[in-house]
Amino acid sequence: MAPVKKGIMERLNAGEVVIGDGGFVFALEKRGYVKAGPWTPEAAAEHPEAVRQLHREFLRAGSNVMQTFTFYASDDKLENRGNKLTFTGAQINEAACDLAREVANEGDALVAGGVSQTPSYLSCKSEAEVKAIFKKQLDVFIKKNVDFLIAEYFEHVEEAVWAVEVLKATGKPVAASLCIGPEGDMHGVSPGDCAVRLVRAGAQIVGVNCHFDPDTCVEAVKKMKAGVEKAGLKAHYMVQPLAYHTPDCNCQGFIDLPEFPFGLEPRILTRWDMHKYARDAYEAGIRFIGGCCGYEPYHIRAVAEELAAERGILPPGSEKHGAWGAGLEMHTKPWVRARARRQYWEDLKPASGRPLCPSMSAPASWGVTKGSAELMQQKEATSKQQLKELFDRSKSH
Amino acid sequence: MAPVKKGIMERLNAGEVVIGDGGFVFALEKRGYVKAGPWTPEAAAEHPEAVRQLHREFLRAGSNVMQTFTFYASDDKLENRGNKLTFTGAQINEAACDLAREVANEGDALVAGGVSQTPSYLSCKSEAEVKAIFKKQLDVFIKKNVDFLIAEYFEHVEEAVWAVEVLKATGKPVAASLCIGPEGDMHGVSPGDCAVRLVRAGAQIVGVNCHFDPDTCVEAVKKMKAGVEKAGLKAHYMVQPLAYHTPDCNCQGFIDLPEFPFGLEPRILTRWDMHKYARDAYEAGIRFIGGCCGYEPYHIRAVAEELAAERGILPPGSEKHGAWGAGLEMHTKPWVRARARRQYWEDLKPASGRPLCPSMSAPASWGVTKGSAELMQQKEATSKQQLKELFDRSKSH
Amino acid sequence: MAPVKKGIMERLNAGEVVIGDGGFVFALEKRGYVKAGPWTPEAAAEHPEAVRQLHREFLRAGSNVMQTFTFYASDDKLENRGNKLTFTGAQINEAACDLAREVANEGDALVAGGVSQTPSYLSCKSEAEVKAIFKKQLDVFIKKNVDFLIAEYFEHVEEAVWAVEVLKATGKPVAASLCIGPEGDMHGVSPGDCAVRLVRAGAQIVGVNCHFDPDTCVEAVKKMKAGVEKAGLKAHYMVQPLAYHTPDCNCQGFIDLPEFPFGLEPRILTRWDMHKYARDAYEAGIRFIGGCCGYEPYHIRAVAEELAAERGILPPGSEKHGAWGAGLEMHTKPWVRARARRQYWEDLKPASGRPLCPSMSAPASWGVTKGSAELMQQKEATSKQQLKELFDRSKSH
Amino acid sequence: MAPVKKGIMERLNAGEVVIGDGGFVFALEKRGYVKAGPWTPEAAAEHPEAVRQLHREFLRAGSNVMQTFTFYASDDKLENRGNKLTFTGAQINEAACDLAREVANEGDALVAGGVSQTPSYLSCKSEAEVKAIFKKQLDVFIKKNVDFLIAEYFEHVEEAVWAVEVLKATGKPVAASLCIGPEGDMHGVSPGDCAVRLVRAGAQIVGVNCHFDPDTCVEAVKKMKAGVEKAGLKAHYMVQPLAYHTPDCNCQGFIDLPEFPFGLEPRILTRWDMHKYARDAYEAGIRFIGGCCGYEPYHIRAVAEELAAERGILPPGSEKHGAWGAGLEMHTKPWVRARARRQYWEDLKPASGRPLCPSMSAPASWGVTKGSAELMQQKEATSKQQLKELFDRSKSH
Repeated sequence: MAPVKKGIMERLNAGEVVIGDGGFVFALEKRGYVKAGPWTPEAAAEHPEAVRQLHREFLRAGSNVMQTFTFYASDDKLENRGNKLTFTGAQINEAACDLAREVANEGDALVAGGVSQTPSYLSCKSEAEVKAIFKKQLDVFIKKNVDFLIAEYFEHVEEAVWAVEVLKATGKPVAASLCIGPEGDMHGVSPGDCAVRLVRAGAQIVGVNCHFDPDTCVEAVKKMKAGVEKAGLKAHYMVQPLAYHTPDCNCQGFIDLPEFPFGLEPRILTRWDMHKYARDAYEAGIRFIGGCCGYEPYHIRAVAEELAAERGILPPGSEKHGAWGAGLEMHTKPWVRARARRQYWEDLKPASGRPLCPSMSAPASWGVTKGSAELMQQKEATSKQQLKELFDRSKSH
Repeated sequence: MAPVKKGIMERLNAGEVVIGDGGFVFALEKRGYVKAGPWTPEAAAEHPEAVRQLHREFLRAGSNVMQTFTFYASDDKLENRGNKLTFTGAQINEAACDLAREVANEGDALVAGGVSQTPSYLSCKSEAEVKAIFKKQLDVFIKKNVDFLIAEYFEHVEEAVWAVEVLKATGKPVAASLCIGPEGDMHGVSPGDCAVRLVRAGAQIVGVNCHFDPDTCVEAVKKMKAGVEKAGLKAHYMVQPLAYHTPDCNCQGFIDLPEFPFGLEPRILTRWDMHKYARDAYEAGIRFIGGCCGYEPYHIRAVAEELAAERGILPPGSEKHGAWGAGLEMHTKPWVRARARRQYWEDLKPASGRPLCPSMSAPASWGVTKGSAELMQQKEATSKQQLKELFDRSKSH
Repeated sequence: MAPVKKGIMERLNAGEVVIGDGGFVFALEKRGYVKAGPWTPEAAAEHPEAVRQLHREFLRAGSNVMQTFTFYASDDKLENRGNKLTFTGAQINEAACDLAREVANEGDALVAGGVSQTPSYLSCKSEAEVKAIFKKQLDVFIKKNVDFLIAEYFEHVEEAVWAVEVLKATGKPVAASLCIGPEGDMHGVSPGDCAVRLVRAGAQIVGVNCHFDPDTCVEAVKKMKAGVEKAGLKAHYMVQPLAYHTPDCNCQGFIDLPEFPFGLEPRILTRWDMHKYARDAYEAGIRFIGGCCGYEPYHIRAVAEELAAERGILPPGSEKHGAWGAGLEMHTKPWVRARARRQYWEDLKPASGRPLCPSMSAPASWGVTKGSAELMQQKEATSKQQLKELFDRSKSH
Repeated sequence: MAPVKKGIMERLNAGEVVIGDGGFVFALEKRGYVKAGPWTPEAAAEHPEAVRQLHREFLRAGSNVMQTFTFYASDDKLENRGNKLTFTGAQINEAACDLAREVANEGDALVAGGVSQTPSYLSCKSEAEVKAIFKKQLDVFIKKNVDFLIAEYFEHVEEAVWAVEVLKATGKPVAASLCIGPEGDMHGVSPGDCAVRLVRAGAQIVGVNCHFDPDTCVEAVKKMKAGVEKAGLKAHYMVQPLAYHTPDCNCQGFIDLPEFPFGLEPRILTRWDMHKYARDAYEAGIRFIGGCCGYEPYHIRAVAEELAAERGILPPGSEKHGAWGAGLEMHTKPWVRARARRQYWEDLKPASGRPLCPSMSAPASWGVTKGSAELMQQKEATSKQQLKELFDRSKSH
C-alpha cells in the first residue's frame, strides 16, 4: 500500500517544484499504439502494458504527476474518429485511471485526470452540451478518485472556463492549461486576460501546454503571471511545452508547420536544451514544469536533473545517466572523453545532417507543392482575425 | 505453444524479406535503462519489463528477428564499465535470451544471439583469449537454444572472423555484420575483401550495422556483395544502419561527429526517410533489413510498410498507422488534410528549427572549444592510415 | 550642355518614382579604393576615375540621384582616421561634387550633397560646434551648386535635426535619413517621432538608410509615415537599405553581426530579392527608393526594372539584361533554358554552399572565441537602454 | 614607356608566383556591361572605360596577368548570340587587346590573349574548321603582340589540344586550362591524362579554371600534376577557380546548380576563404594563381596578400586594406575592434541570413517546380556516361 502523499496544492504552496510527465499520444504513436490524426487513447484499454510502461518510464525520469491517458477520450471525439471501437469511452477512461494510479503508487507521484477541448465546442454546441461532455469524463475521474484535475489543450479560453467550472464543482484542485502562445487564444484574448478568467473561474494553477516550444511557452506563461498579478489575484503556474524547436510558428502553433506531424524529427530538443528550459521556467516563477508532444522520458529526466539542487533529489532514472555527459569519461577515444563536460554540450550547435533542408519553414505552407485556389483561400482564412470572425459568425447561427 | 517457424536460412533462401529490429542501447537509454558511455545491457536482468516492452514494440512494427539484448555483455566489457554490478554476465545473457524468446513466441519472429567486438581484442589479447570471450557468451545462447547467431559491430574484420569461427562451430546459421562504411575496416580492408573473408570463415549472411546512415551502409553492403560475387562465392546480405543522417562522417562513423551521443536529435530520420532506405536496400539485393542506434519502433514499421507488397503482409502495428499520412484525412484544417498523401511527404525538406546551427559538422572536431595540443595530436592520429600503424605496432608487442 | 531637369521636389510632388544609387564605401572597398574601418572617401580626389566609373554604372542602372561621395568627409572624421592625408577635406568634397555633376549630366540624374553623423556629436561637442562641422561641408555643396541635400546615416535624431536645420538654411530641398530600424533611434525615440521632428525641422523627405535589410527598413519607414500622418504633417519618404539579409540584427543593425564587415558575402541579396524590395517599398508609399552598403549596380537595375511600368522607362543598363532571366533562353542545356522565367527565380531558395555555417547569427557575439570579462561587460553595455544612459551621462559633463 | 618586363616563362621558371586576374563576364554583368546568357564581350568596343577600369582594379589588387577580354569572342559565338552587333569580332578582339596592354603598362603585368571552347566543336565541325576559328582570334593577338596565350574554359580535352596546337605555332608561351573537376573532362578523360595530352601538344602551363570552387579546382590540378609527373613530363601549373562555394556540384560544375547564374550570391567566397585558397594552391605547387567567375578585385588582393611573403611584395591596393581586419582597430565599439585579428576571421562561420534556404542544392534540379517528362529525360541524359555516348554518336555522323 502506498504511503499518504502530499497533494498538489500542498506541494506548490510549500514552494516545491512539481515535475510533470510528457505527451503520451506522440510517444505512443512512435511505439505503435496511437494513430496519428485521430490521436485517440484506446491503448489504455487495448494495450495496457504499453501505457503502463510509459508511465513507469516518466516516473523513473522524475515525474510527480501521472496524467491519465485520456486525451481526446471524450465520447464525441471517440465517435468522430471513424473507426469502430472495441471499447467504450468509459472503459478507456477507467483503464487510463487504473494505469496511472498503479504506477503513481510505485513512487512519489499524483494522479491527474485530464479533459481537453471538444469537437462539440468547435461545432458550436451550447455551453450546457459542452459541459455535459466534460461531466461524463469527470464521472470516471471521481469514481477512480484521481488526486487533482487538469483542463488542458484549449485553444479558446471560453471553453476552458466552462471546463474549469465543471471540474471545480468536484472540490478537487483544478489546473487549467491553454495551448496558446504569447499572442493569446484563437479569439485574440491575451495570455494575461486568459489567465485572469481561468483563475476567476476557480483554477488554482494556470499555464500553457503543447503547440509551441519551451521558449515560447515560458514567455506565454510569464504574460499570464503578469496578468494575474496585475489583477491582484494569486495562482500557481504550469508549463508543458513541445519538445520541438518552433521559432517559425505563427499563432496556430506547430500544427501549421509543414513538418507537422510526420517530419518533426530535426526539431527535437536535446537533453541539454531541456536543462535550459527547466532553468528558464524555474526562474520565471513556474513550479509545475513538464512536457507535451515530443517528450521522451530522457527529456523529463533532464528537467529533473537541472532542478536537482532546488528539489533536493535526483530522479531514479539518473542511476543510468551521468550528469552533463559524465558517462563518456571512460570512452576509449580521448576526443570523445573530452565531451564529458557541461561546457562542451552547452556550446554545441548540433548539425542536422540534412544539407538540402532549411533551418526554418514558412508556417501553413504547402511545402513544395501548391494547392488549389480554393485551398489557398481557406489557408488565408487562418489569420487570427479572420478565424475569429468565421468563428463568431458560425456561433451566431 | 508457438507453431514451428521457418528458420532464417529457409526464409532467405526462399527470397523472403526478413525485417530486423532496432538498436536497443540507444532506445533504452532514452527510456532510462541504459547508461550512455558503458552502454551495457544489465536492464535485461534489472528491468525486464522495459526490455520486454521494447521487443514487443519491434515485433508489432514488423520485426522478424528478436536480437538478444546482449550488446557489450561479454564478461570483459562488463568488468570494464567500472560500476559494480548486481548481476553476472551469465545472468544478464540468460535473461536477455528469455525475453527475446518470450516475445518472439508472440509473433512471427526468430531469436538471434549476438556477440560484438571485445575490449580484449583492442587491448591485443591473443586469438585464443578473444575466442574464449565469445565462447562464454555463446554457451548461454546454446543453452537457451537461440535460432541463429549474429556477430555484429566489429570494426576489424580479423576479430569478426574469429567470432564467426567460434559461432560456426555450433552448427547454427551465422550472420556477420561489421560497423564499417564503404572505405572498409579500421585496417583498411575493403568491404569486398571483408565480406569474402567472413563468408570463407563460414558466415551465411554478411553485411554492416551501426556507425553510418542508411545511404552509406547500403553503399557498403553493395561493395560487399560485389566482392563476394567476384570471388565466385554466395551469401545473403544484411544491413542495420543508424537512424541518423551522417553525410559528414569520416571512416570512424558517427562516434567522431561532435554530436555523438547526446546531440544527435536533429539528425534523426523521419519515417519517410525509412521508406527510401527500405526501397534502396531491397533494390540492392539485401534481404535482411533492420536498424541499429536511433531506430524507434515506428522506423521499423516504415520499413515493413514500404516492403508490404513484396512481403505480402502489413505489420500488426499498421493498425495504428495510415499509409503515407492517410490518418490526416479527417483533420479539421484543410491544409493539414492536404498532407495526407505520399507526394507531400516525399517532397518535404524538414526544417530543424535551429537557425543558429549548421547542417553539417566537421568530424572529430572539438566543437566550439579547442583542445590542448596533446589532445589535438591524438585526434590527428585518427586518420585511418595512422590508426592502422598504431594498431599494428601495438599488436607486435 | 545638359538640358534643364526636373528637380527632386517636382518629381516627388508629381508622384514619380525616384531611384537612388548604392553605397559607395562598400562598393569601392571591394574595388580597392576605400579602407574598411575609417571608410573615408579620399578616392574622389586620389582616384577620380574609379569614383566616376561607379557613378556611371549606377546611372546606367537607372539611378536618378548621384550622391556626392562625401561620406565621413567632414574634417573631424578625416582627422580621426589616423593616416596623414594628401588631400584636404575641401579638396575631397569638391572633387566629389565635380564627379557627381559630371556623370549626372550624362543622364536623367540630380546631384545630392550629403552630410552624415559626426565624431563631434558622439564626443559630446556642443550644438554650435557640430553645426559648424556641417556648415563647412555645406559651403562646398553650395559653391558647387548641388541640386538638393541629404542628411543621412544618423543614429540619433537630435543630431539629424541639427543637420537639417543647417541644410535648410540654404533654401535647397532637404532629405533626412536615419540609420535606424523599427525600434527607433539610439535614444529610444520611435521612428514616428523621429520623422515628425525631422519634418518639423524642415526636411521635405524623410526615411532610413543603411544598418538593416530591405524588409526591416521598409517597416521602419512605414512607421515614420504613420507618425507623420498622425501628426497631421506631410512629407515624402525615402529608403536606402543594406543589400544584406539581416533578420538576426538587434537595434544596432549589422555592425553588431559577427560577419560585419568582412564576412557578409552569404547575406548578399540577389536581384530577385531586389524586385521584392522595390515592390514592397512602392506599395508602402515610398517614392525615393535606393540602396546603401552592399548595393552593386545590378541591384539598382533590378529596382528600376521592377518599377519600369510605374516609371514608364527601363534603365539604359537593361540593354544588357533580360527580364527575369530571359537571357538564358538560348542556353545550350534545356534545364538551364528552363530557368528563363519569373516563377523559377521567385521560387528559388538559394543555397549557401556552406554546410558548416548556420543561417543566422547571434548579434554582438564573439563568434567562436570568447572575449575577456572586461570586453564582455562592454558588450553588455550595448543594450539600448544602457547606451542611452551612458550617452546621457556623458552629455551632462 | 613601360620597362622591359620578365616574361611568363622567366617568372615561372624562376619559381615566382604569378597572380592572375578575375573573371570579367560575371564582374561586368553586375556592373551592367555584359548580358548573362550570351556572355559576349562587346563591351571592350562599346564601353571601353568600364573594361579598362576593371583591368586597373585587378592590377591594383596584384594581378600580373591582364587577360584580354575576349571570352566567347570567336566569330561563331558572336553570330550565335542572336542580337545584331555594332562591332565585328575583329574590332572587339582588337579593342580588348589594346585595353589589356594599356593597363598592363601601368604596372607589373603581362598581356595574355585567350581563346575558349567554340560552338563549332559542340556542333561537330571538323578539326580544320574549329582550328580556323581559333586562328582568326589568334591573328589579332599576334597583330597586337600579346605576351603569351591561354586556351581556357574547355570541357573537352580534344578541343583544347586542337587549340594548343594552333596557339603553339606562334612561338609564344602557351597555357591550357580546362573547366573540369577531379572527375575529368566530359568524355571521362582523367585530369592526369588531360594534362599529359596538353603538355604533349605543347602547353607549358596546364591547369583548370571556372566551373568549380577553389577546393575542387586545386584538387583537380593536383591530379594533373601527378599525371604529368608520372608520365615523366614537366610543366607549370595554373588554377583560376570560381569565387563560389560549390561542394554540391556534379561533374558539370556550377552550370547545373539551380542557383546558376542569378542566385549565386550566398555562395560568394569571403576574402578569408581566398587566403586559404591561395595557401592551398601554393602548397600544391601551383604558381599561376588567379580567379574566374565571381572574383572581384578584393578577392585577388586577398590572394596577393596571403602570398606577400613568398612574393616579397604587397599589391598597390593594400594601401586601402589592413591585414586580417586591422582597419577595425580604431572602431568606436570594442566588440568590433575585437575583430581586428586573424583568428577571429579564420574561425568565423558566416551566416546566410536566409533561414528558409538550405546550405546545399541538388545539381541539375528544377528547383521547386517540376519540368515536363521530356525535359526530365533530357536532364537524365546529363550523366557523364550518357553525355559521352550522345556526343560520340553525334560526332560519328
